[in-house]
Amino acid sequence: MGAFSVGCITLTTDFGTLDHYVGVMKGVIHSMAPDVKLIDITHDLKPQDIIAGAFVLRQVWNWYPADTVHVVVVDPGVGSHRRILAGRYDGRMLVAPDNGLISMVHREFPLEDLRVVENARLFLPTVSSTFHGRDIIAPVAAHLAMGRPLRELGPTTTHLEVFPVEQCMIDDRSVVRGTVLCVDRFGNLVTNIRRNDLVTAARKRPGAEVYVSGKCVGPLRTCYADVATGEPVALIGSSEFLEVSVNCGRADKVLGCSPTAEVTVE
Amino acid sequence: MGAFSVGCITLTTDFGTLDHYVGVMKGVIHSMAPDVKLIDITHDLKPQDIIAGAFVLRQVWNWYPADTVHVVVVDPGVGSHRRILAGRYDGRMLVAPDNGLISMVHREFPLEDLRVVENARLFLPTVSSTFHGRDIIAPVAAHLAMGRPLRELGPTTTHLEVFPVEQCMIDDRSVVRGTVLCVDRFGNLVTNIRRNDLVTAARKRPGAEVYVSGKCVGPLRTCYADVATGEPVALIGSSEFLEVSVNCGRADKVLGCSPTAEVTVE
Amino acid sequence: MGAFSVGCITLTTDFGTLDHYVGVMKGVIHSMAPDVKLIDITHDLKPQDIIAGAFVLRQVWNWYPADTVHVVVVDPGVGSHRRILAGRYDGRMLVAPDNGLISMVHREFPLEDLRVVENARLFLPTVSSTFHGRDIIAPVAAHLAMGRPLRELGPTTTHLEVFPVEQCMIDDRSVVRGTVLCVDRFGNLVTNIRRNDLVTAARKRPGAEVYVSGKCVGPLRTCYADVATGEPVALIGSSEFLEVSVNCGRADKVLGCSPTAEVTVE
Repeated sequence: MGAFSVGCITLTTDFGTLDHYVGVMKGVIHSMAPDVKLIDITHDLKPQDIIAGAFVLRQVWNWYPADTVHVVVVDPGVGSHRRILAGRYDGRMLVAPDNGLISMVHREFPLEDLRVVENARLFLPTVSSTFHGRDIIAPVAAHLAMGRPLRELGPTTTHLEVFPVEQCMIDDRSVVRGTVLCVDRFGNLVTNIRRNDLVTAARKRPGAEVYVSGKCVGPLRTCYADVATGEPVALIGSSEFLEVSVNCGRADKVLGCSPTAEVTVE
Repeated sequence: MGAFSVGCITLTTDFGTLDHYVGVMKGVIHSMAPDVKLIDITHDLKPQDIIAGAFVLRQVWNWYPADTVHVVVVDPGVGSHRRILAGRYDGRMLVAPDNGLISMVHREFPLEDLRVVENARLFLPTVSSTFHGRDIIAPVAAHLAMGRPLRELGPTTTHLEVFPVEQCMIDDRSVVRGTVLCVDRFGNLVTNIRRNDLVTAARKRPGAEVYVSGKCVGPLRTCYADVATGEPVALIGSSEFLEVSVNCGRADKVLGCSPTAEVTVE
Repeated sequence: MGAFSVGCITLTTDFGTLDHYVGVMKGVIHSMAPDVKLIDITHDLKPQDIIAGAFVLRQVWNWYPADTVHVVVVDPGVGSHRRILAGRYDGRMLVAPDNGLISMVHREFPLEDLRVVENARLFLPTVSSTFHGRDIIAPVAAHLAMGRPLRELGPTTTHLEVFPVEQCMIDDRSVVRGTVLCVDRFGNLVTNIRRNDLVTAARKRPGAEVYVSGKCVGPLRTCYADVATGEPVALIGSSEFLEVSVNCGRADKVLGCSPTAEVTVE
């Protein structure tokens, strides 16, 4: 970092905001790195929801500048033998437990360096068995944001926990088959079908329509207002995935759908 | 702003904190304007609740210093032909969709400049049809916070979407008639009756009492502790509106009231 | 702090994030002290829950550096004759209503200075009767963070509201008897039994087991993963209190327990 630039640490956890956990992590980071900007991504991940954490981390990843340190703590295995990893992908850094949280970033961005966090001189002097976010991850993130090189954290590693993400499929009739990955705050159904999958299929099958759990929601459209209020609409969402929404409503409620519901374009 | 002062962008959205949307907007702003302070107002507006967004924006407006950029995103019309506006009122700036969000600021603060955001060179290179908060509003706000003049954003405009807010009335017997505007987190009933309305009426009718949905809650008092725990109390709230509360309780529950309930002072 | 270091104000309130209250307090502070870092601890304390506020304040207290100003607003007595206090304990400062919020910090950290906030020249020009967080506490905190000495705020005081916290007891058979203090976001039962209490008792009674509401949850263990998924586990939590948890589950649900439930180690 240049002499005057401001480092940045983002925080993504399942700690919620009823308790002191987030405030304590911020205190540890601020004490060690008072000039670093702290940015809350979310603390409202469902407890122990590693998949949601991996998804949010991947979604924010490259909207932050090089040298940003992304901290992610969803850590049901805290205190056991699960490792803590720190790495650099596509210029941005992360510190997180090795439990699958890095899966989607690992799959989609070029890996530059991945380390097992073992150098205890960078931890707090006393390490508890239930709050490594405070005792290990926060101080290590502060060190990285202040310019300490990744190689000082511990040995490199080439394997890590990666959970499988079901890919969509295009069959020989150019029907695209996928599933609902998650439901967002607005009730939008985010699927595992990407824009490119649709482009490929559409060459052979123009004018295809989208079905969710067997219900037709029409052809691919451009924006919510392309349909009347309360009507379902299929479009490419801001993350380049096919999404099914309801204009000014909740698609999950209107269509009675939840994650793993079947989606086809045919 | 002085050469070394820190610019400030506030964020008010209905994005919630389950998803990555807020984190992505912060990343876009931080990437372009790393020295600007980011302040969360709220991300918990009810989805598509433009009226609540307009109210919160007006309430925080002039508690921030000149040159603050207030960003508000409640945007059910995203991707359609609704415009995005940027403006300056009473020294503070805003960027928001033109859907009524600016209504209360527009009504209560002096307009200095209002622009239609059209200069695509200030947007992200690719603009989606469902997330203009990321692609247009965040980068434009970063430009403004870094000192770019409003006039470079697009042409001036004199009209904008303004929703009606029902005003209270004072009849010829000096009875003040209003309604409950909203219920806050504590169950306080915020009305559309202002301190000045009561002053005007009180000259002719001293000792008036406050009624909500026909129930008397006594005369105007000064603070919650003026009544016993669990009892209702009418007072001028911190925003200079008449409010009805319950000491250490929830007025909405105790009185069975919600927005649009009738309020009279007589 | 060095000449150019960044001051820090933390915010802990029961204001929630539906309304404008938090945004307004941040605006007042930022206007007066634009270079000070604002850190949200939580705004989701249960309305009027002074005990939770006192607990969170104590938990974050010394994880922040010297000269940090901790602001806590849970204030059902606002506008009545309750006082506002500002103090310094163990190098960190606070501003809060005198209603018990300071209880746990007062009991556990060395008091250096405690003042009744009375110097109205440091308040906003107009002080409402329902929002002293905005009108008194925020500007006073900004003054402190900018370096104004505590003694300018008002006279010293030696008494303050302190609520009782039930202590655990060790009987003559070395049985430790305590209660559940609170339930955290993960459903962990935090008790009022400290590590030291257990060490004392264990000398005389090795191999003791932990009981909650009469149900045995086994001996003291080290981490959640020491038991199978869904099983209860007793351990010393990150705050040095005995906690009862369920591995990847909620102890409050599985054991049917809530605050004040009896806990014994025997």
